[in-house]
Amino acid sequence: MMADQPPQPLLDSPSGDFASGQNFWHMEYMEPGLIQGSKITRVIFDGQSAYQATQIIDTTAFGRTLVLDGKVQSSEVDEWVYHEALVQPVMLAHAAPKRVFIAGGGEGATAREVLRHKGVTECVMVDLDEEVVELCKEHLPNHHQGAFDDPRLTVLFADAIAYLRDNPEPFDVLIIDVSDPLEGGPAYLLYTQEFYAMAASRLAPGGIIVTQSGPCGPTNVTEVFSAINKTMGAALGETSPYRVYIPSFGTMWGFIAAGLPDSPSVAGATSAQIDERVATRLSAPLKYYDGVAHQGMVSLPKYLRAALDAERRIITDATPLYAV
Amino acid sequence: MMADQPPQPLLDSPSGDFASGQNFWHMEYMEPGLIQGSKITRVIFDGQSAYQATQIIDTTAFGRTLVLDGKVQSSEVDEWVYHEALVQPVMLAHAAPKRVFIAGGGEGATAREVLRHKGVTECVMVDLDEEVVELCKEHLPNHHQGAFDDPRLTVLFADAIAYLRDNPEPFDVLIIDVSDPLEGGPAYLLYTQEFYAMAASRLAPGGIIVTQSGPCGPTNVTEVFSAINKTMGAALGETSPYRVYIPSFGTMWGFIAAGLPDSPSVAGATSAQIDERVATRLSAPLKYYDGVAHQGMVSLPKYLRAALDAERRIITDATPLYAV
Amino acid sequence: MMADQPPQPLLDSPSGDFASGQNFWHMEYMEPGLIQGSKITRVIFDGQSAYQATQIIDTTAFGRTLVLDGKVQSSEVDEWVYHEALVQPVMLAHAAPKRVFIAGGGEGATAREVLRHKGVTECVMVDLDEEVVELCKEHLPNHHQGAFDDPRLTVLFADAIAYLRDNPEPFDVLIIDVSDPLEGGPAYLLYTQEFYAMAASRLAPGGIIVTQSGPCGPTNVTEVFSAINKTMGAALGETSPYRVYIPSFGTMWGFIAAGLPDSPSVAGATSAQIDERVATRLSAPLKYYDGVAHQGMVSLPKYLRAALDAERRIITDATPLYAV
Amino acid sequence: MMADQPPQPLLDSPSGDFASGQNFWHMEYMEPGLIQGSKITRVIFDGQSAYQATQIIDTTAFGRTLVLDGKVQSSEVDEWVYHEALVQPVMLAHAAPKRVFIAGGGEGATAREVLRHKGVTECVMVDLDEEVVELCKEHLPNHHQGAFDDPRLTVLFADAIAYLRDNPEPFDVLIIDVSDPLEGGPAYLLYTQEFYAMAASRLAPGGIIVTQSGPCGPTNVTEVFSAINKTMGAALGETSPYRVYIPSFGTMWGFIAAGLPDSPSVAGATSAQIDERVATRLSAPLKYYDGVAHQGMVSLPKYLRAALDAERRIITDATPLYAV
Repeated sequence: MMADQPPQPLLDSPSGDFASGQNFWHMEYMEPGLIQGSKITRVIFDGQSAYQATQIIDTTAFGRTLVLDGKVQSSEVDEWVYHEALVQPVMLAHAAPKRVFIAGGGEGATAREVLRHKGVTECVMVDLDEEVVELCKEHLPNHHQGAFDDPRLTVLFADAIAYLRDNPEPFDVLIIDVSDPLEGGPAYLLYTQEFYAMAASRLAPGGIIVTQSGPCGPTNVTEVFSAINKTMGAALGETSPYRVYIPSFGTMWGFIAAGLPDSPSVAGATSAQIDERVATRLSAPLKYYDGVAHQGMVSLPKYLRAALDAERRIITDATPLYAV
Repeated sequence: MMADQPPQPLLDSPSGDFASGQNFWHMEYMEPGLIQGSKITRVIFDGQSAYQATQIIDTTAFGRTLVLDGKVQSSEVDEWVYHEALVQPVMLAHAAPKRVFIAGGGEGATAREVLRHKGVTECVMVDLDEEVVELCKEHLPNHHQGAFDDPRLTVLFADAIAYLRDNPEPFDVLIIDVSDPLEGGPAYLLYTQEFYAMAASRLAPGGIIVTQSGPCGPTNVTEVFSAINKTMGAALGETSPYRVYIPSFGTMWGFIAAGLPDSPSVAGATSAQIDERVATRLSAPLKYYDGVAHQGMVSLPKYLRAALDAERRIITDATPLYAV
Repeated sequence: MMADQPPQPLLDSPSGDFASGQNFWHMEYMEPGLIQGSKITRVIFDGQSAYQATQIIDTTAFGRTLVLDGKVQSSEVDEWVYHEALVQPVMLAHAAPKRVFIAGGGEGATAREVLRHKGVTECVMVDLDEEVVELCKEHLPNHHQGAFDDPRLTVLFADAIAYLRDNPEPFDVLIIDVSDPLEGGPAYLLYTQEFYAMAASRLAPGGIIVTQSGPCGPTNVTEVFSAINKTMGAALGETSPYRVYIPSFGTMWGFIAAGLPDSPSVAGATSAQIDERVATRLSAPLKYYDGVAHQGMVSLPKYLRAALDAERRIITDATPLYAV
Repeated sequence: MMADQPPQPLLDSPSGDFASGQNFWHMEYMEPGLIQGSKITRVIFDGQSAYQATQIIDTTAFGRTLVLDGKVQSSEVDEWVYHEALVQPVMLAHAAPKRVFIAGGGEGATAREVLRHKGVTECVMVDLDEEVVELCKEHLPNHHQGAFDDPRLTVLFADAIAYLRDNPEPFDVLIIDVSDPLEGGPAYLLYTQEFYAMAASRLAPGGIIVTQSGPCGPTNVTEVFSAINKTMGAALGETSPYRVYIPSFGTMWGFIAAGLPDSPSVAGATSAQIDERVATRLSAPLKYYDGVAHQGMVSLPKYLRAALDAERRIITDATPLYAV
């Protein structure tokens, strides 16, 4: 049963304050026949970078929001769910992460979560799109919270695959925070068996890689999530799939971690261990993640485990998802 | 980061098949400034019962869907998530449930989940709206799956509170499957401290009550969920709050269970116990719930536990939520 | 400058009356990037005839509305504008129309306008879709206003072209009230040079043909209107193009009349003649059309006359519009 | 019958060009239960002036568009219809207009139409909102077409009523191009009997005043149009109401002119006179207006004349429209 909501006008009063005069909506397809319409209260930026259409908007439901190529990337009201979920399970499962690599992560919030770890000595973030990163620096202060000023952070504007290929120095944690692996998108090569094999060679002993892995609700778990899990498993062995709910994405969102044969299991971390490490390693408290939340994230419902078990697709450079 | 979705037309081709000729959309506010628009492929029924505006529609994203007073109640693609989550945790935590009471549950799917238990001897379902129940019987066969024909089920069209007040014979499990407790709605009296006290007096030893409890995502957990939890706690003692993601509701959805002082804890059930009982008690397999899924449902993220801890509102007959 | 409108809620109050419980909208593209969204208050019928997806709905803005293949065909609040504009200029320009032919006209409102003429002895209406006509009879009483019961009316369910080809008895007036001539649509063969030549052979001396001719606003006049005008001119000689504004179509709507060489000019009718004939020929008053309104309809703005002058396309059976 | 439109995607392809990445829509209520949704391809400006929320957008359907307080003010594809209709009938009916006053007219297109007259020696434009005028100068070049640089134009940022009250020097033509007279809006005092009486005192012999007068389609003619006509008639005597269709306003739009007792009638101008004056007085050709178009604008349909005849409301400073 649905909660009764007080009725909401589509358009605010024209005689009221500023927000009243805005009749703009961000209308985004979540899947065929399903639109999420979000009322815009202010357009902060609308333009085109060298790589993608870029908007920064304030919305009634989600606050300050980054939109790339017409799709919400992260919003003020729930980016902390996404970024804690992406970063903290692997960082806290790792024995002592010092060097961390981020592919993508333009908003600076992924770096923020990494740099919250006092033990981190170096974080290298490689994002393709300098213009978007500059816009995020200026307009998303609640996302990055000053992370770009941390001397431990190096931001490079380059291709993440090329960077890893050309720089053999190993990392303790690799974090892949780029668009989903649909053919034609800029980022599918970061989801292939070949990439995971190369990435493994850039992990220091005990190292772990984690990747955002797309939607994983009852209606969309096989879109990309199950295939990424199968592919990581083929390249790296045991995986730790987990998920959280992200309101502005309109669905459950999946993440998958995996490591070298001797690396610690992310899914297998105990609540006690997590809470102890949160208490000693971090310079600021978390809002979503702790030992209890961890069990909620990794304890998957039956249908989701079944979908993972049934998956047979392995993504390769030559056979991306959705190739015809 | 969002998954790239192939672009979807708002309107289908006028020269194609039947679905092409439909330009109807169900546009529902999820919260202020946030609309979920779902494309209708066929309107099965549109009318007004004695109690509520009633529609049954087929939609592209959610299949056959029941809509009451403009709000999605349950849909074919995810009703099993909702109904397993509502029914199975309490039924499987209970030592041996025989007599079960359902308030609401018009679609017949709540009864279906109850009757899946071989040990149940009697299920009494009390719903106010006979017309809606008849429509569900006819048009939602995938919801009820024949549950209305089970001789163990008694369906009464009456006020659930009056029924419980007038019938002292105790039940093992009480399931509250009605609209949320917003003042003015028909059902808020089923969410008050007074109701829970009366309900407790209708529980047999070891009995448990569970109620659907509204949305509990990062943006809406304090709307009703935390107040229901606080109120149940005030009336019944320890509660077991938990949640699942329901796509057609566009958010995480909460449930809260509580029992008599000696009743088993729902949240505290072990995975092994749950799996053992699923194997022995049920006449048909589940799709969402099992021992692992249980841990995912009851292991709440930090922000959600904090919201429950911070809640001070207790709903009473005299002080419903949203009273001015 | 736009009129200030009081703000309107997208969704009505869930605690109010029946209309409150309806969140259905008819969302129709008017042209690329332009949607007209009309709130549905009740779905009267939703189904599929042998020929087309068919809906009859009540809407807040337009009242009872017929929708075919996803597109509004006519609505209660403005069908009188459309049907008077389609029928009365030719009927009143003709010296004394007795036998009238209608192609299409399923709602019965075109026949209603014809039968308003006391001098008409016979009206033959040929519509392809019997199911739609039966639905209109039942559900659109304010459209047909009993016209189907007039003994002068013969309704046939057949192909209008075949009927005219096989029945040589001439008519005084031919009225073409079918969908626009886009290739693939069922009706484009009623807009070709060949059709107009055949139709001319079915006109009695002094006879006139008129056809609905699609949108003719500043943004869409060349879509089909100018090509139909050019084609009728090629087949029949001088044409009388004219237009009115139809709110539910979201644009200006065009009509074109033409006759045999000795037939009276429709555009050239004087206001005095029209008013005199309205007074003597009709059994009931009109709401839109009279001598003054006529001048407003036929006196086209400069851009529209320029578009008609510039048009070179002639629609033929072999070269319909939009052929690739 | 509606024209078949090829189906249009709500969202463009994310892999295409810039426009593909835009999922913003301007959603504006035209009347209760009726939304016009226009796809935005680029947000040029979004901000708040001292007086009103202000946006300048590019849209698929209407090109460059000015939006104030959430409502479309004028768009590139049809502003010429509006501005010719507002300005040219009175300018060409007047014997020899030299001094012209414009209230409002921020886009500069009203001035453009005035300055097209070679005989005009001075045009005074008084608009309240300097910020909006500056934005129009910069971003609406196709609207003003350099009019702001014409030395005959004086632009003042002030209250138009105060200006006329304090400056007794008479004008040949007064043009009122401000928002509609709904109470609470900034401009209703420019639609009252008192204003028209004062304005008459600022007309030189033979002078004429014209005002934009809101929607006048079958569904909205009595909203403000008929009341403005009644009020002007009460203050000034005979009026000349007329209308054109403006696509971006989604309806027919009305204008009303009136003069001193000896001023020429606007509605009564002959086509020959208009065409002769267009040929001799203007420095550049028109696109909408000429002698024939004039007859189409002033020859009102029967329902519209009936609504004007039936109107009894007179707007005064003390009794604005929609006062409770």
